[in-house]
Amino acid sequence: MKSQTYSSLHDVFLLKLQSLYDIESEIIKALPKMIKRATYPELKSGFEDHLEVTKMQKERLEDVFDELGEKSKKVSVDAIRGLIKDVSWLLQQKMTPEARDASLIAAAQYIEHYEIAGYGTALAWAEEMGHDTIADMLQETLDEERQADETLTVLAEHAMNEKALQPMIND
Amino acid sequence: MKSQTYSSLHDVFLLKLQSLYDIESEIIKALPKMIKRATYPELKSGFEDHLEVTKMQKERLEDVFDELGEKSKKVSVDAIRGLIKDVSWLLQQKMTPEARDASLIAAAQYIEHYEIAGYGTALAWAEEMGHDTIADMLQETLDEERQADETLTVLAEHAMNEKALQPMIND
Repeated sequence: MKSQTYSSLHDVFLLKLQSLYDIESEIIKALPKMIKRATYPELKSGFEDHLEVTKMQKERLEDVFDELGEKSKKVSVDAIRGLIKDVSWLLQQKMTPEARDASLIAAAQYIEHYEIAGYGTALAWAEEMGHDTIADMLQETLDEERQADETLTVLAEHAMNEKALQPMIND
Repeated sequence: MKSQTYSSLHDVFLLKLQSLYDIESEIIKALPKMIKRATYPELKSGFEDHLEVTKMQKERLEDVFDELGEKSKKVSVDAIRGLIKDVSWLLQQKMTPEARDASLIAAAQYIEHYEIAGYGTALAWAEEMGHDTIADMLQETLDEERQADETLTVLAEHAMNEKALQPMIND
């Protein structure tokens, strides 16, 4: 990106939105691979649902840029690429379906928490600047990410306790 | 790492510990740069304190490996390298000290949340396998990470409301 001096909270807020826009785009590209390799049906459908939610979150960011009178723009984020590279690495390992599902849930929770931090910061800054409408929009995404994280926790417990992962515990 | 088949929860748990061990090591290398570039005194000392806590967390992981009768070993994690690369990128941008501090707090919260997810998974798996002592150790680190995240949130509010970042809000 072109050289600029970041001096106002608006400047760093815009940078944060541009990075979140990149992050959502990368997640949309990565989720289909995770859906494909998940075995436990609840996990597969959970990832499918989350892909749709993520697409809406990306569109919501476009609405946030509109609200600000700014163009939707991405700033390339290394962290999300690293998170996704780690998922690809996991998927290359020889794993039983149970071990792969457990690892995929853990990887998805890494990504959720990463997003929770990002949207948490963006929301705090929006509130600080009195961008009420934008704050509401960011709050909505933040709630969805927290919900997704909780769903994954419950899913992990289900998978452990019921059937999918039970065989592996006493291996 | 050598090719192996991950089949038991123990296998993926050990892999998770090895990744956390790598993550803590990378954070220990990165924090001095963040300390050096932070301006707001509370932030600088907060990072300094966190460096000491992180060193203890790394040693605690060595104790966890001992408990399991396993050697302390790292598996290289792309995500933490990406997170740290993003911090380096931020530190290369032209920013006022206030904008840099706000961005450093946000970056540190990304890292905290990332660790919260990692230790959350490790703790859930330790409990599942009945590793009570190890679960207590992981819980201790998880509590510290959550505390660090809260401290950063309070610090961000202080910085915003008091002095350090006030000038930038209405820029």
